[in-house]
Amino acid sequence: MLDYTHVDGLSADDVARLRAVYEPLTGSVRELIDATIRTEVDEDVVAAAKAEIDSATARLRAAQKDGSFGIQFGAEGDSMPWGNAVIGVRNPTAPPLLIHKEPEGVATSDFYLGAAFEGPPGHVHGGVSAKILDHVLGDAASRPGVQRLTGTINVRYRRLTPLGRLHAEARVTHTDGFKTYAVGHIADKTGITVEAEAVFIEPKWARS
Amino acid sequence: MLDYTHVDGLSADDVARLRAVYEPLTGSVRELIDATIRTEVDEDVVAAAKAEIDSATARLRAAQKDGSFGIQFGAEGDSMPWGNAVIGVRNPTAPPLLIHKEPEGVATSDFYLGAAFEGPPGHVHGGVSAKILDHVLGDAASRPGVQRLTGTINVRYRRLTPLGRLHAEARVTHTDGFKTYAVGHIADKTGITVEAEAVFIEPKWARS
Repeated sequence: MLDYTHVDGLSADDVARLRAVYEPLTGSVRELIDATIRTEVDEDVVAAAKAEIDSATARLRAAQKDGSFGIQFGAEGDSMPWGNAVIGVRNPTAPPLLIHKEPEGVATSDFYLGAAFEGPPGHVHGGVSAKILDHVLGDAASRPGVQRLTGTINVRYRRLTPLGRLHAEARVTHTDGFKTYAVGHIADKTGITVEAEAVFIEPKWARS
Repeated sequence: MLDYTHVDGLSADDVARLRAVYEPLTGSVRELIDATIRTEVDEDVVAAAKAEIDSATARLRAAQKDGSFGIQFGAEGDSMPWGNAVIGVRNPTAPPLLIHKEPEGVATSDFYLGAAFEGPPGHVHGGVSAKILDHVLGDAASRPGVQRLTGTINVRYRRLTPLGRLHAEARVTHTDGFKTYAVGHIADKTGITVEAEAVFIEPKWARS
């Protein structure tokens, strides 16, 4: 059984306030990540920047959660998957994806991948595409209150995906008991670059 | 054709010196990412940390490469895939993986995944496992001077992978013309959690 944390007395307003505090911090760290990869400044400037970064880290670590963020819930049911590696608003390594869930098991997202997501020069790392497709297909396959985990995913690369503005979409094709089947793709402005199909499974401990 | 940058006059010593300048910076940003996800400090402390981060970013952006890092080479052939999303020593979003390449198409890696790689509470995001397997299998399938790109990868999740210390390994099963087939897995201390098989393709423009 996974540990979903319900935070007593945290109203929807409190959740919105927390988001307003932490989301800009995460955005600043994302900018820093990009600058760290692309910088060409001299050694002494790097040292000065590093000292400021270490100071910021010490401030933030003055009070911190043990382990990882987990998935927290407010008292009114607000879900906070804020540490998530793909969609987490508090995870600077997430692009993050903002996923639009449509009726009938369809999920779509428009997102931007910069220097942090590179594999082949100027292009998205194949593994990053797989990571994003896993999440978007999983979102298509999920309904509120019904947890699903990836059983298998097959990813097919038609061609290299350029860094920049991209689109992902996924849809459920059918369900069979505790299994949900979904397909999807990533596309750039000229068409599909990567396709995937996956099976998602509702874990035994989540079945009601 | 991909843009591999050869840096004229950059000796092996120069490459080592650059690495010594930038690798500690990247390490500091990785610590900051972890602290950003886990912090519970008050709003005013977050604001103070954010100001330092923004200052560090401005310093680093005073001189920076356009676009992404790419894959650069020194004059003596040293490869610098330093911006890579899985192994890049200048990419704070990479764990990073240090991959040991053994003869006969085998690749292994021991690595640590913390809060930044979370999906289900306390566990590795399924997409992150796929990303890592794509890279480790690809490394097994590659030889110096022979570039390969992922054609397809199939990933099967046996059970959830806990955050923490993990091991990955991959090996080539066979080759068929310009296609190389590889299998591999991720394991925690009690055994295999995720398996993969993939086909890698030597692109037409890289065939000699």
